[in-house]
Amino acid sequence: MNASPTNQVPHVVIVGGGFGGLETAQRLRKSNVRVTIVDRHNYHLFQPLLYQVATGGLSPANIATPLRSIVRKQTNCDVLLAEVTDFDVAGQRLIFADGELNYDHLVLAAGATHSYFGHDEWQEFAPGLKSIGDAAEIRRRIYLAFEAAERETDSARRKARLTFVIVGGGPTGVELAGALSEIAHHTLKHDFRHIKPEEARIMIVEAAPHVLAHYPEDLCKRAADKIREFGIEVHTHTKVTEITADAVHLSGPDGDTVVATMTVLWGAGVKANPLGQKLASAIGIDTDRGGRLPVNSSCQIEGQDRIFVIGDIASFTDSDGKSLPGLASVAIQQGRYVAKVISRLASGQSIDEPFQYTDRGTMATIGRAAAVALIGNRRFDGLFAWLLWLFVHLMLIVQFQNRLLILVQWAWNYVTFNRSNRIITGEQPAQLVSPTNERTSRRHAG
Amino acid sequence: MNASPTNQVPHVVIVGGGFGGLETAQRLRKSNVRVTIVDRHNYHLFQPLLYQVATGGLSPANIATPLRSIVRKQTNCDVLLAEVTDFDVAGQRLIFADGELNYDHLVLAAGATHSYFGHDEWQEFAPGLKSIGDAAEIRRRIYLAFEAAERETDSARRKARLTFVIVGGGPTGVELAGALSEIAHHTLKHDFRHIKPEEARIMIVEAAPHVLAHYPEDLCKRAADKIREFGIEVHTHTKVTEITADAVHLSGPDGDTVVATMTVLWGAGVKANPLGQKLASAIGIDTDRGGRLPVNSSCQIEGQDRIFVIGDIASFTDSDGKSLPGLASVAIQQGRYVAKVISRLASGQSIDEPFQYTDRGTMATIGRAAAVALIGNRRFDGLFAWLLWLFVHLMLIVQFQNRLLILVQWAWNYVTFNRSNRIITGEQPAQLVSPTNERTSRRHAG
Repeated sequence: MNASPTNQVPHVVIVGGGFGGLETAQRLRKSNVRVTIVDRHNYHLFQPLLYQVATGGLSPANIATPLRSIVRKQTNCDVLLAEVTDFDVAGQRLIFADGELNYDHLVLAAGATHSYFGHDEWQEFAPGLKSIGDAAEIRRRIYLAFEAAERETDSARRKARLTFVIVGGGPTGVELAGALSEIAHHTLKHDFRHIKPEEARIMIVEAAPHVLAHYPEDLCKRAADKIREFGIEVHTHTKVTEITADAVHLSGPDGDTVVATMTVLWGAGVKANPLGQKLASAIGIDTDRGGRLPVNSSCQIEGQDRIFVIGDIASFTDSDGKSLPGLASVAIQQGRYVAKVISRLASGQSIDEPFQYTDRGTMATIGRAAAVALIGNRRFDGLFAWLLWLFVHLMLIVQFQNRLLILVQWAWNYVTFNRSNRIITGEQPAQLVSPTNERTSRRHAG
Repeated sequence: MNASPTNQVPHVVIVGGGFGGLETAQRLRKSNVRVTIVDRHNYHLFQPLLYQVATGGLSPANIATPLRSIVRKQTNCDVLLAEVTDFDVAGQRLIFADGELNYDHLVLAAGATHSYFGHDEWQEFAPGLKSIGDAAEIRRRIYLAFEAAERETDSARRKARLTFVIVGGGPTGVELAGALSEIAHHTLKHDFRHIKPEEARIMIVEAAPHVLAHYPEDLCKRAADKIREFGIEVHTHTKVTEITADAVHLSGPDGDTVVATMTVLWGAGVKANPLGQKLASAIGIDTDRGGRLPVNSSCQIEGQDRIFVIGDIASFTDSDGKSLPGLASVAIQQGRYVAKVISRLASGQSIDEPFQYTDRGTMATIGRAAAVALIGNRRFDGLFAWLLWLFVHLMLIVQFQNRLLILVQWAWNYVTFNRSNRIITGEQPAQLVSPTNERTSRRHAG
């Protein structure tokens, strides 16, 4: 089974089955190459909806589609479940912990991970949201916080349990905060007997002057108003100076404050996948500050015409000198371009044109029937923007079934404020509340 | 908020939010008692469909419903997320790692766990199926096995990777085997390039003369035929003598054999939750061999009229001297009975009648359009039995939304043979295949 004729044609190895990598693979469907997608997970993750998993609105499987089933019909495409540990550039090989793989063309589309700005010790107290594992952990912390508060008798500790601090006012932070507000005010409204979930304190902490700072100021302002309407505190111009197991230290306009909380979520910074650094050292170049690999106008590393880098792990500077943002649309368009280039090279042609990013607009959801959208110069917010957001994202999801299930689930959740996926999995803390806690006995008193 | 009048009425504490415990709580809705359900999970798990999660047919949230949302409207019912560590019988108290709770009436409905018949060292190699964690782990092993086989070049090791041994021919074992066969022959059919998933070897190993031995012999035989039709090997009269990381040792009619496999699933034995033993020692009585607590005709521990024990953790011997099986229907009927008894006691009445189990029939599914059902003396198999099984189980699921989603998901899966939930989560093994593996490089040769 290794003697298939495809062994004779150029071998394109794509590292990462995200938006960019998958687009590249699928666009090579008709090309005279054989494609291998290497990913350490067996699924493509639709990250824009990951916050829904983290807040119990969707199941992981709703937004994760097995890579094999996506490319099932693409006979020139192979999927390899493996973790890349290093690059042998001269030998045109990928190194795995348990094997290796030769390539003729390499497409690195390994994406990004969290950045704690040199404070990696914060990670355990403030999980970020990039993987399904992250989402499960965040969901666990959110719902455990309410459970712990329900059993807590010390009012200060109960208040801390019901305080949620989201670091970073970008799309992820705003989405998480919006969902948290819905959980507190609607989903859990009648679930508890000893706490009022709606008394939960939800804070967004943002160093910049605005939340959703990538959007025009008027949209930012309207978004901020909407966020406050949802009962969320917005603290701009505010830096996080320390995060511990039970507190966040802030430095803002009104000086330094310490907020007692056991639930901090990280939506602040991203950096490129460490594979970027690995490849950079293998070649002998430098990454940018975000660990991203600088690429030329054809998404190649200068002087390495067999190596393409796309998406969040690439630093692409467009014609007017500004670096492209870490958006799915950038990765997808770069994937499409790289597939075209590789097809040309495979058929003996040369690269005919540089990559050109077309901004088709961006949107961010805030919560129930609230979002902001920027399409060209047109700006939308409120219900229309939200419906737009909903439509676009549903249409983008890879697999029909998931789209249908998500639609059913969302329709149901929207009507009922229900979040059926709020089950707490993963290991339980042995002690949910401090041993000195009195509720459980006191409740029986009298 | 602790001064509510409900503090004056008898406090019924139910340990375990499974079928029995939940039924007890809900049946006490109108009684003049206050109820607290204590569970270490925040959800009620619909165990009959757990095998669907383990095989990627359903998401955990489809079969797990938050306990709080189930009893939301039952104002006299409280839910406590806590793990019981011990019992203070004299003091009528439950002891938690992080608190304690007094009761007037205790209902122990903590269910069962796996029994490895004194070979607990087998657990890591042969996970059982009782919790969502178990299901996730089994799903991970099943789909990782195919991924590893795809990358394996050594034919013997590849064969071992594609060998699945299910220990125990009871309902769980048969359900898992049937689902595995569907995965191998349909779901993954076109997913791989280097292996044929349908070549997977699926074995059921059963010490008894028949699979589904609880059913009449003719049903067993027809079930066994159906199982073989699905391409599953049925080894009855066969004992497991040893399980290691890469092999299962069997002792059967044709002597002793060693089967090379990396995926063994345990469906053989159950024993009562260890809390049964804890309570037995606290009282100073003995459990039965299965660790179950002997109860009298009113589901009480003899001489402990404040302690009721129901479901899989109870050993109830009925009027004609035989012990009731570990079925959901037994737990539910006992829960209903105990609720009635406690209501009477709470209103100053005495227990008027012993518990009487009514067998409404049992059913087990084998796979696609195949099941067996025993209702009174009527026996069904094939498609009708399966539709019956499907209908009964869908109707039994607690929450409407889940029922709807499961229906959509099953309809879709049935038509497409798809299993959308086959994503592999949890920590990945660093080495999926042996480092000496050649496929990854060899594939590029020539």
